[in-house]
Amino acid sequence: MPEQLAESIVQLALRRGFFNPTAEIYRGPAGFYDLGPLGTLMKLNLINYWLDTFVKRETSFEVYLIDGSLILPYEALKASGHVDKFTDPKAECVKCGRIHRLDQLIEETLGLKVEGKGIEDLQEIVKVQGVRCPNCGGELTGFKEHHLMFKLSIGGGGEAAFLRPETAQNIFLNFKRIAYAMRAKLPFAVAQVGKSFRNEISPRQSIIRLREFSQMEIEVFFSPIRGDGPSKFEDVGDTVIRVLTREEQKRGDGGEAIELRARDAVEEGIVPNKFLAYYLAKEVRFFQSLGIPPENMRFRHLLPEETPHYSGGNFDLEVKFSFGWKEVVGNAYRRDYDLTVHSKHSGEDLSIDDNGVKIVPHVVEPSFGVERILYAILEHSYREGVREWPILMLPRIISPIKAAILPLLDRTALVAKAWEIYTWLRASRLPIYTVYDDRGSIGRRYARADEAGVNLCVTIDHQTLQDNTVTVRDRDTTSQIRVKIDELEELIFNDTYRGLEQ
Amino acid sequence: MPEQLAESIVQLALRRGFFNPTAEIYRGPAGFYDLGPLGTLMKLNLINYWLDTFVKRETSFEVYLIDGSLILPYEALKASGHVDKFTDPKAECVKCGRIHRLDQLIEETLGLKVEGKGIEDLQEIVKVQGVRCPNCGGELTGFKEHHLMFKLSIGGGGEAAFLRPETAQNIFLNFKRIAYAMRAKLPFAVAQVGKSFRNEISPRQSIIRLREFSQMEIEVFFSPIRGDGPSKFEDVGDTVIRVLTREEQKRGDGGEAIELRARDAVEEGIVPNKFLAYYLAKEVRFFQSLGIPPENMRFRHLLPEETPHYSGGNFDLEVKFSFGWKEVVGNAYRRDYDLTVHSKHSGEDLSIDDNGVKIVPHVVEPSFGVERILYAILEHSYREGVREWPILMLPRIISPIKAAILPLLDRTALVAKAWEIYTWLRASRLPIYTVYDDRGSIGRRYARADEAGVNLCVTIDHQTLQDNTVTVRDRDTTSQIRVKIDELEELIFNDTYRGLEQ
Repeated sequence: MPEQLAESIVQLALRRGFFNPTAEIYRGPAGFYDLGPLGTLMKLNLINYWLDTFVKRETSFEVYLIDGSLILPYEALKASGHVDKFTDPKAECVKCGRIHRLDQLIEETLGLKVEGKGIEDLQEIVKVQGVRCPNCGGELTGFKEHHLMFKLSIGGGGEAAFLRPETAQNIFLNFKRIAYAMRAKLPFAVAQVGKSFRNEISPRQSIIRLREFSQMEIEVFFSPIRGDGPSKFEDVGDTVIRVLTREEQKRGDGGEAIELRARDAVEEGIVPNKFLAYYLAKEVRFFQSLGIPPENMRFRHLLPEETPHYSGGNFDLEVKFSFGWKEVVGNAYRRDYDLTVHSKHSGEDLSIDDNGVKIVPHVVEPSFGVERILYAILEHSYREGVREWPILMLPRIISPIKAAILPLLDRTALVAKAWEIYTWLRASRLPIYTVYDDRGSIGRRYARADEAGVNLCVTIDHQTLQDNTVTVRDRDTTSQIRVKIDELEELIFNDTYRGLEQ
Repeated sequence: MPEQLAESIVQLALRRGFFNPTAEIYRGPAGFYDLGPLGTLMKLNLINYWLDTFVKRETSFEVYLIDGSLILPYEALKASGHVDKFTDPKAECVKCGRIHRLDQLIEETLGLKVEGKGIEDLQEIVKVQGVRCPNCGGELTGFKEHHLMFKLSIGGGGEAAFLRPETAQNIFLNFKRIAYAMRAKLPFAVAQVGKSFRNEISPRQSIIRLREFSQMEIEVFFSPIRGDGPSKFEDVGDTVIRVLTREEQKRGDGGEAIELRARDAVEEGIVPNKFLAYYLAKEVRFFQSLGIPPENMRFRHLLPEETPHYSGGNFDLEVKFSFGWKEVVGNAYRRDYDLTVHSKHSGEDLSIDDNGVKIVPHVVEPSFGVERILYAILEHSYREGVREWPILMLPRIISPIKAAILPLLDRTALVAKAWEIYTWLRASRLPIYTVYDDRGSIGRRYARADEAGVNLCVTIDHQTLQDNTVTVRDRDTTSQIRVKIDELEELIFNDTYRGLEQ
């Protein structure tokens, strides 16, 4: 049943143009996907809604948006620690030549947690326990650390560089420029939306684990001395968050998340500071507004062996998918690690004046995975058995298409009127995207619209020609209302925000 | 004087957060730039305005937007011809080790046009004419073709791949998927906005020639048999375009562009078809609305030696910058080249049914360079000498900040009221981005806003507290009007579209 859901989503995605493997006609490499016409609009809508929520409407502190290079020089990623530490262990089958990610292979074959163990330890486990290739039963060889960054060389001389493994690094590298140009005062934040790259050994599950993916990240810079929080912390302090503590994770059954208010999580020392708790609360509200029920969300406090040495606490927002819990947002308290190492390696002073005190700010980072969120939304919106066809009950703000314009019958006058309304709506300055469809019966067209998650169907009939009214059908309820054409633009726009906070 | 303008733009960009070199603190490699907070908003506004104009408001034919992978497998780029032909000639100085782009070096030292010549011919010219390193006078050596794609390898096994050199390829690779998923009929178009990469030997002029850059591309697929054009060709057919013909370019002085209507350009055989002419006309209108005067634009018909063998005609939209004419949009009639080669190499049939006839469609491609357009807009908006400070008279739709909210004086009541208006405007669902500023005299704050291209300054004074009105100052004229607070949101939004087509 769960596998069926994942399969239905993938089939729907291919059939209707949400996503498909990259360079499919050449059977391109795993871990790369292209978004089709509907997937692209959905992604744009998600990014815009995120920017609205976490940048434009954020007045607790200033949030500056930047857009940095995907290619970063060797020195920068040497300093950040990625050149030395960003690896996964791998091994090769002597028989079939397949390359396996070693820690995953051991975890899956032996049910053993080996996160954080070195390559020698893993090799030892393989030897002692007799782990073999799950594909052909062959012996394993070629044990080594596999680098997760894509390496490339620049220019005629071949300077070493990498594709960035996270968007965060541009923000740290530009910290001083941004602070000066914007006359920024602590606390302030810098956000970025863009591609990141990880050369995974074995990417899986369609758009869930990709080698090229999109992130929406924020780094909040704040004084570690003052001990304050976001000025609007009180607005979200009562939000209930579900935390899977380290203690709970040690239990045999995987443990249960505890429920508590964001403010209490800070007071009880479960979450290290108010900036982090602020984001956990905002994330719960954000995902709820995207149709993810609270019981399908939890913040997993990463175990010490999963966490970098400098971390003041990492909390992954995990969502329950048909195939289990998966991270969709990583929340990390990075302390002053990044600014300090870049300061040291570059020789540039990256401290900032905070009311007369010179400090290196601390950093809290929420990092959202775009494709995983799109997939989570698709799984939570997909309905079978309600009507004779599948329906995508997408959050209205995320739907790729806000309205379909349909002449009831294939008559010249109706088609002409429908086309006129359609071109007028396409010219709207409001962010509403519409389509026109006159192929097949009205029932088939409703079905087609439902399957693509179209919010509203606007039907032009004979009465339209007489009184300039149309019917508007709601995707979720199929209820219809009759409205004046003049009201359509605003109606479609307002409908997009239905159910969201004002 | 021209160099002064370029220098002023670069200094302004650094000072105010439009753009800066990537990984500046490590003196990162040339040809990479990050957009700062103002540059990023400007870029988003440009992309949105472009999407509005060329995708959402286009009803001449359907335009589907996709978002594809930046990493493409070897096979795909082997088929497209990039693996074999996408190179520039280079040579190294024996003395200082500097690597030069050979054709550019010869053109600049000898004033000789060598486009299209092979590496042996160029080496011969260097030998015969005694060309030496312009940096140190050293001899040149190491003559070879330099590959312009960034190569990388994927996964544990090291599959060969490249960063895409143009966004176009994803569109061709996905052609069949898109056509089926969208039930598309010819003519239709596919658009894409995203990063592309070219490993240039010597990138120059800040954000004009980058190794990593953003493109906004469209591929229009149409029947070469029917000989029709876009259904709304008549809407733009009378637009005057300036064409620098091949004949004119052969003249010693570089030649003069001829002026003619888009429809006549097709009829006289200067532009090969209506689809191409349609875009040339739309581009003229688009750039005029962005403040580029017609006399600073021309379409250069590329010479045969600059054009791929399959091309049915390439027309670069060049804009006059302070340092000369530069391409900002490439327009190419690619015929059926791409679909045909991908069909052949992949074994996948990429033909489409057009009213019962099976054809491989022809393609017209307008390809916009985002960073160059941003730079063109900055140069054309920059004003010195009008006031005591520089002003960026940006197109209102492109301005990063639509309004600055300013309490007239540093009094508690005014500050509180201004902050209240600011947070209300930040929460607006309309795409208007605002800032708050209470630092320094009102004059200094106006100057700061003008320099950042802020469209409107909203000032809160004592009268505001009495009658809920504010003054709104226009950036370009400094004229002020008094309006009700209630009207502010709509006023700022509508002002954004001032002067644009409805």
